[in-house]
Order: sequence, then C-alpha cells, then structure tokens
Amino acid sequence: MNAEAAAKTDLHAEMRAMGAAARAAAGDLALASADSKAAALRGAAAAIRDQREAILAANTRDMAAAEQRKLTAALLDRLKLDDKRIEAMARGLEAIASFPDPVGAVLAEWTQPNGLKIERVRVPLGVIGIIYESRPNVTADAGGLSLKAGNAAILRGGSESFHSSRAIHGCLVEGLKGARLPEAAIQLVPTTDRAAVGELLRLSEYVDIIVPRGGRSLIERVQAESRIPVIAHLEGNCHTYVDGAADAAMARKIVLNAKMRRTGICGATETLLVDRRAIGQLPAILGDLIDAGCEVRGDAETRQLDPRVKPATAADWDTEYLDAIIAVKVVDGVDDAIAHINRHGSHHTEAIVTGDAVAAARFLARVDSAIVMHNASTQFADGAEFGMGAEIGISTGKLPPRGPVGAEQLTSYKYVVRGTGQLRP
Amino acid sequence: MNAEAAAKTDLHAEMRAMGAAARAAAGDLALASADSKAAALRGAAAAIRDQREAILAANTRDMAAAEQRKLTAALLDRLKLDDKRIEAMARGLEAIASFPDPVGAVLAEWTQPNGLKIERVRVPLGVIGIIYESRPNVTADAGGLSLKAGNAAILRGGSESFHSSRAIHGCLVEGLKGARLPEAAIQLVPTTDRAAVGELLRLSEYVDIIVPRGGRSLIERVQAESRIPVIAHLEGNCHTYVDGAADAAMARKIVLNAKMRRTGICGATETLLVDRRAIGQLPAILGDLIDAGCEVRGDAETRQLDPRVKPATAADWDTEYLDAIIAVKVVDGVDDAIAHINRHGSHHTEAIVTGDAVAAARFLARVDSAIVMHNASTQFADGAEFGMGAEIGISTGKLPPRGPVGAEQLTSYKYVVRGTGQLRP
Repeated sequence: MNAEAAAKTDLHAEMRAMGAAARAAAGDLALASADSKAAALRGAAAAIRDQREAILAANTRDMAAAEQRKLTAALLDRLKLDDKRIEAMARGLEAIASFPDPVGAVLAEWTQPNGLKIERVRVPLGVIGIIYESRPNVTADAGGLSLKAGNAAILRGGSESFHSSRAIHGCLVEGLKGARLPEAAIQLVPTTDRAAVGELLRLSEYVDIIVPRGGRSLIERVQAESRIPVIAHLEGNCHTYVDGAADAAMARKIVLNAKMRRTGICGATETLLVDRRAIGQLPAILGDLIDAGCEVRGDAETRQLDPRVKPATAADWDTEYLDAIIAVKVVDGVDDAIAHINRHGSHHTEAIVTGDAVAAARFLARVDSAIVMHNASTQFADGAEFGMGAEIGISTGKLPPRGPVGAEQLTSYKYVVRGTGQLRP
Repeated sequence: MNAEAAAKTDLHAEMRAMGAAARAAAGDLALASADSKAAALRGAAAAIRDQREAILAANTRDMAAAEQRKLTAALLDRLKLDDKRIEAMARGLEAIASFPDPVGAVLAEWTQPNGLKIERVRVPLGVIGIIYESRPNVTADAGGLSLKAGNAAILRGGSESFHSSRAIHGCLVEGLKGARLPEAAIQLVPTTDRAAVGELLRLSEYVDIIVPRGGRSLIERVQAESRIPVIAHLEGNCHTYVDGAADAAMARKIVLNAKMRRTGICGATETLLVDRRAIGQLPAILGDLIDAGCEVRGDAETRQLDPRVKPATAADWDTEYLDAIIAVKVVDGVDDAIAHINRHGSHHTEAIVTGDAVAAARFLARVDSAIVMHNASTQFADGAEFGMGAEIGISTGKLPPRGPVGAEQLTSYKYVVRGTGQLRP
C-alpha cells in the first residue's frame, strides 16, 4: 500500500472511530440532566474567557495563513477574533445554558379507549455532523446548541479557522469534563483534509443528521453526496414588497434597513417589488438606497424613475447578492408579487409593507416561505431576534425543522405507550 | 429518434406536466377550507360505494393478470378487493373527513420586546409523491390523507393493481370535482412503466416530499435515487423483552399476540428477548408459539428448553420475517436487552413486559425507537390504534415525522411575523 492509500485508510478508520465514540456519547447525553448540560455550557464559557490569550494566539496563526493565501477582506473579517468576539462567544454559551431544556417535554398525551396511555415525548436527534466554513465562533455556537439538545456533535470547521476552532473546541471539552459528561459529546475533526467531509457524509451507521452551514457550493456538495438526511439552509433570496396601500415613510425605512443594515446576512432583502399603485413612492426609496451606496438594478419602469438605476437581467431575479446590490421590479398588486416570489425566491424570508389588512393576510398565507412578515424588516430573520437563543442556521427545506434552527429544532420525538397487558384484537 | 427514445421523452414530459399541475393545485389546496376538503373526502367515499361494480370489475382484470403471472397467495390476497374491503375504503375516507383539519393551527405564538408578534402556523407540505405496491386501498388512504393535509399528491401504485387503482382514483377525482377543488389535487401516474418512478424521484422542482410504502427493495431504491427528501418506513424488526419481573401470564399472552395475531404487519414482534431471571417462563412461551404454528429459532440456552427450537444464526437477529417465525435470545437483564435492540433493531417498535417500574422507565428512555411500549403488544404500532385516523406508514427515520404518519404528520409550518414598521438595529 502506498502512502496516499495508507493515509486514506487511516482517515476512514479515524472518522469511523469518531462516529462510534459519538454514538456512545449520544446514549449518555440523551439521559443527561438539564443541570449537567447547563453546567457544561457555563464551564465552557468560563474556559473561553480564561483562555482568551491562547484563542487569540491560535487565531493569529489562522489569520497569517489566510493573509498569505490572499483571502478577501470579507473572509478575513469573518475569520478574525478579538476580545469582543471572544466575549460574545462566551455569552452565547451562557445564553444557551439559560434557556429551557428541550429534552423530555411531553408534546402530547392521550388515553385510548382500551386504556393504552400514549405520550409523544421530545428526544434528542442523536448524533449531528455539522460542517461549516470560516467563522470560528460557529464552533462554540454549534457545539453548544447541539449539547443543549442532548445530541453528540461531530464538528467539521473550515480549514481557514483550523487553529482557532481547535482552541475553542478545547474549551468546550473542558466544560464537558467539569460537568462529568462524555468528552466525545463534542468532537472536532482533527484534520483539514477535504476527504474527511466525504467520510463524514457516509457515516450513516453513526450519524443521524448532517447540518451544513456555509455558501451554496458547500450546501450543494453536501446535498449531492450525503447518505444521511440533511437540514440545509440553501440561501436567502429574500424579497420586500411595497404594496399600493403602504405607508410611504414606513416603506422607505423598512426597505433601507432590509437591504443595507448588513448586506452579508441571509435575511437581507435582495429584490424589491413595488406595486404599480405605489410607484410614486419609488423615487424616494431608490434615492435612499443609492445614497447609502447600494447599486440598483431595475426593470424598464424603474429605470425611467432614476438615471442611476442599471438594467436588471433575468438572472438578477434569482440572485442572492449578499452585497450592496438590489434588484427592483414594478408589479401589479399583491398577487403578482406573490407569483414572482414563489417563482424566484428561495423560500427563506419575505415581507409585505402595507396598511391593507386583506392584502397582508393574502401575502402571509400565499407566500411559500419559512418566514413571512408584515410591516417589518427581513433582517429580523434570525433565531436570536425570534427569541429562540442562538441558531445554527435557517432551514429553507419544506419538512420541519423549517426556519431558524435552535436547540429545540435539533430534537425529534418518540411515542411512549403504557399498558396493563393489552392485546390487539 | 427511435421509438424507445421517443417514449422516454414523452414520459419525461408527461411526468413534468403532472408535477406542474400538482404544484398549481397545491397553491389552491393550501388555502382550501376545512369544509371543502371534508366534502371532497365524503364525495369520494360516496363515489366508491356507487361504483362498487366498476371497481370490482377492474380488480378482476388485475387479479387475472396476477394469477397468470403466478404471484404468491399472500400477494394475491393483498391485491384482492371485495364488498367488505370496498366498504372499508369508503369508511376510511369518511373517517379522515371527520378528523380535525390540521392546516392553519397556530402551534406557538409570542411577542418580542420590540413588539414583533411571531406565530408558528401549520401549513401543508406542498406536493407529495407517494410510491406504493400491491394493495389498491392505499390509493384511497394515501390520496385522502394527503388531501386532508392540504397537499397535492402524485400517486404511483404497483403495476399489479393498475386497473383497481385507476377505478378508485376516478372516485377520488369525483369527490374533488363535487367540492370544486382542483382535479390535479390527486393524480395517478397513468402508466406501469417502471421508468416513471425514476422520473418522479427527480421532479425536485415540483415535488416536496417522497413517501415510499412497500418492501425493503422499493424503499432502498427510493432512498438511493431520490433527489427529494424521503419519509421512509424502512422495516419493523420489532422486539418484545420479557423482564425478570414480568407477570408470567401477561408475558405469555403479550408475546403470542405480538408475534402471531398477524405476522405480516410491520409491528409484529420478530425477536423475543428473555431475561435470564425469567427463564422459568420461557418453556410455556415457547410452547404457546410452537402450538400456534410458529417456527422458533433460538440461541443455545433456548434450545435446551425445547427440542423443537431450531438454531438461530447471526442473521436472525437482524431479520424482519413478516412470517410465523421468531428469534429467541436469553439476555442478562434490561441493559443487555436495550443494547441488543439498539444494535439489531430497526428503530420501529419495541416492548418491555415487567412489573418493575424502574426497569420499565429505563427501557422506555434508552431504547432508541419511534415507539416504545410497556406491558402491551407491539401489534398496536399503527396510526389507527393510536387514534390518529388512517396512516400512510410508520416512519423509522430520526427526524420528524417519526412513528405513525397521519394527516397531521404530512404538514410543515411557517413563521408569520407581524410588525408596525420595526427596523433591526
């Protein structure tokens, strides 16, 4: 066997060993008390504060390598840790600790005429494989949420954040040890070898669910290769629709916030639809956007309103820019807006601005997205803003979990049936 | 283009047209009133009674072809319709009509400190592709459940039941028409060409979920080929564990019922585990089974108790017989039973018989199956027996829906957010 083949065999064996350890840990975690999981999360937060210097040193190594590889400024910013971001990670873990424990809740209970008592009880999913990209804080968030829900996690971070993630993972393990929970409850794949992702996606014997968090190419690779069910956040091609009955001042503020507050998040509006009856509101909205540094790509009607508007092509309606660019289209009322969204959107988050309760109800009912909003900024599409604590992403699939995925969404249920010797006739 | 290639192109176009029609129908169905869906279900039941003769004639054609193809007696029995089975189909549809409508229920609601009102609202899944085998009544059950949940269905029945399913489908369409719901709400693939299944599994643009209902080879083909998420009922390798603290009379009755009441259903017990402390109960249990015509395959200890017990091989612990055969193993208490089940089971349904509340609690908590039971027959693993109305199958996956899949389990949810102009800071 040559060296390459040997390395491949080693990686295969190593990933299987991680899978088996995770499966064993999941058995214990499913029965761990709420207090011990919370103690592990608080212990991990304390360890992150204690080891601030070591985490920063590890991050400096990652940053140096990333600069050498000439990563973009946006990627470097995602990768960078500082005191404030480290404190935010610690606080995030403490927030997860403080939330109610989802496991064991009785979701429904009833008694059949034959006396059988049936309960639907919330249980952990089991073992979760989480694959993510450059932000090292995902190591803390994803590991913490998974633990809260009683799952064992196998984390596979981006190669750029390898040293940072390893340092943060060490703190999570300290928390687990302090609470006497199995160390294998949160494991980090200890290599940057891309083949490890392929191995993880085939560990169906040990891993119950795969959660990819990253760009479109990562998600698509995972969906194509995985032999394990995937909770996927595909993308956020989000829309704001300004209805004919919109309050003009509210519409201006919501559109500007929805697009420009932060352009790189999945809840940022990418396409603005304006009712032809509200076209008088459009010049002011366009002016706000352009003044804030946003490139506007409009249909023919929009371009007539402002010479600075560039032409939109067919591809613009299907594009998640994640940048200071917006596509703008004039539509014929709420039904036309709904049809456009259901055809071109990504089923993530869409908002209507209107004072017309009937139009709002129609939009909220007929738009087929995980999150639909009335008179609010699409930038609120976020687990923390929903009061769900941290989130691991926003699921755009049709099956539950749909929308923000927090600890509660990383659980399943089982049916517990209690009898006194009943036989089926 | 030769004739074969042309037929393939036609099938592709035909399946895509069905997909597009289903997607359009799903938009209307999601907003259909509970009353109109119930009226369609009752109308379909009435049509099935009215067209009893035509359905029986169609079934006679299917039976003649099946006999010519020398299908087994078990398959012929599944395929056969008679007055009683036709009446059961009609009543099944009426029962589905009478259940509460799942769509539109507010599952949770809360208000954030910034005034945003958030609701989680139950919505249909959208378009469901349902692939099943010989029983023609599945056409009525699956179509009816899907409609109740506000979904459009594309049904693909077994080729053996082609004419029967077509006659039953005609009745469902009559019900839809009578209630002024779109006819494309329930479509039946109008060909027995196996390639149609492959086409259906690739209609990801139009179909949201695939539900296979059938044997292992069908499920495995669907899981391997589908580009669409699958709700799968893999198999039911169910266990009954007789604990040391079991009531001997109860244990005998439960084991006999769990194995022999009907051997061909997924909730039938396939392996019996007996605590070494209860080994004194085993000869009577074995005698009951053998007297009832069951073949017993036992480990060495079991074989010493009765000369009629055949030797079990390693494969027996992993086998769903769906027949009058049972594997029997002596174990060392509840933890050994749990370990055996979690290793060899299929996460479907397992029962403990015991008078020891601590052992029962341990078993119910630690066995990782969709349904866990205490002092009851595993044959109760059934949506109707759970009071959920008809079921489309029992999901053995880890993500919801897990366990019996009725109308409520064929839904998803969306988040509806109502604001007054909130901007994200």
